[in-house]
Amino acid sequence: MGRADKPTNLPDLSIPERGHVLGAISVRATASADLVEILVRLREAGAEVVTINSFPATKGEPEVTRVFDIELRDIDANEGARIAGTVPGVHLAEARPTLGQIFGKRVIVVGGGAQIAQVALGAVSESDRHNLRGERISVDTIALVGEQDIAAAVRAVADLPRAHILVLAGSIMGGEITKAVRELKEVGIPVVTLNMAGSVTKEADLVVSDPVQAGTMAVMAIADTARFDLSKQRGRRY
Amino acid sequence: MGRADKPTNLPDLSIPERGHVLGAISVRATASADLVEILVRLREAGAEVVTINSFPATKGEPEVTRVFDIELRDIDANEGARIAGTVPGVHLAEARPTLGQIFGKRVIVVGGGAQIAQVALGAVSESDRHNLRGERISVDTIALVGEQDIAAAVRAVADLPRAHILVLAGSIMGGEITKAVRELKEVGIPVVTLNMAGSVTKEADLVVSDPVQAGTMAVMAIADTARFDLSKQRGRRY
Repeated sequence: MGRADKPTNLPDLSIPERGHVLGAISVRATASADLVEILVRLREAGAEVVTINSFPATKGEPEVTRVFDIELRDIDANEGARIAGTVPGVHLAEARPTLGQIFGKRVIVVGGGAQIAQVALGAVSESDRHNLRGERISVDTIALVGEQDIAAAVRAVADLPRAHILVLAGSIMGGEITKAVRELKEVGIPVVTLNMAGSVTKEADLVVSDPVQAGTMAVMAIADTARFDLSKQRGRRY
Repeated sequence: MGRADKPTNLPDLSIPERGHVLGAISVRATASADLVEILVRLREAGAEVVTINSFPATKGEPEVTRVFDIELRDIDANEGARIAGTVPGVHLAEARPTLGQIFGKRVIVVGGGAQIAQVALGAVSESDRHNLRGERISVDTIALVGEQDIAAAVRAVADLPRAHILVLAGSIMGGEITKAVRELKEVGIPVVTLNMAGSVTKEADLVVSDPVQAGTMAVMAIADTARFDLSKQRGRRY
């Protein structure tokens, strides 16, 4: 979901949830195919359209110009593909797993230097332990330096599909970064920071001195298989 | 781009490229807004539509039901937002940086145990060094175990936006995983594996024994600031 659309406690529609089936379809279409018609037919069949990705076709089938990747809830992917295939101009519609089914919730790590690699080490090791028990948690990092670039990345986390928590790994962060953290928390994404210089730790949900521990705790905070409730930790320092 | 749409040597339209401006717009719209009309007007203004993400609005503005995040090439984001704002039913259209501008090319690491964390350590440290010189390389990991789950993740890498290389981190991989690696290479995404048991190393573009080195080399292979040409390394073992 986009920046302004992740208020706390709303479910992430891209993540598997009991009582809802998820599925994706990939549709290869000619210029005459009407995307809106595809969506209307899917909705009539009871599907909730979660995301649509549209991009130019480059495989070279005659007349196929567009590809639509559509993620759906509450409809079987094979049934969705069958329905999309009935729309005029649709050349091929295939069922796929959704990216949420494969890659799950995302821990985003932003920062630089020795710290970001150590946070990644902790988070990746911990995600492995939870994924072995049936979860799907990804750990995604972008190494960046500088107040403006880091602040822009923090703001963009709100637009990253399936981002569930942010870890800031550095030695000094404040100013525009602190403002961006406040905005991110408002859209419902919690923020863990290392214990560092600058004002950012004042806005953090959790401040952790050891980077491996910070990565580990971030994964625990979003894991269904962990007994770690961030709301009981808010404002604490470890 | 989707699975079948990344043949080798085709540019990734989501990644900044000399001679093309990139920009994103976020459009909040009522049910009466016509997405196709928005796209037609953007194209008439010279824009190439790279991706569209559509999701339900949950912020509670009266009558706003949908949010469209649209990534564009060859048009300034502010101009794109202005044009989208002229379409009936559009409540708000804002310019944004694209996810490609912020998070850049992605190294995907799939596997488990001690190895995946060490590959991430190497890749994150190396990406930091290139990003300091102006690149944008993200390192994204999913810890998984089991032939079917890993094979499905390998196949899904083709559908991940901005995925440019895959590293497989494990001790034994073959069977369905090897088949999935062959398919992924066909759509233009190179694969680095650790030196391990199983048939997967036979399909790898590069086999590396040390996991930190594997992560480092994977980043070098997609970095514009590195002198490391995977085509000259194909089939080698380090």
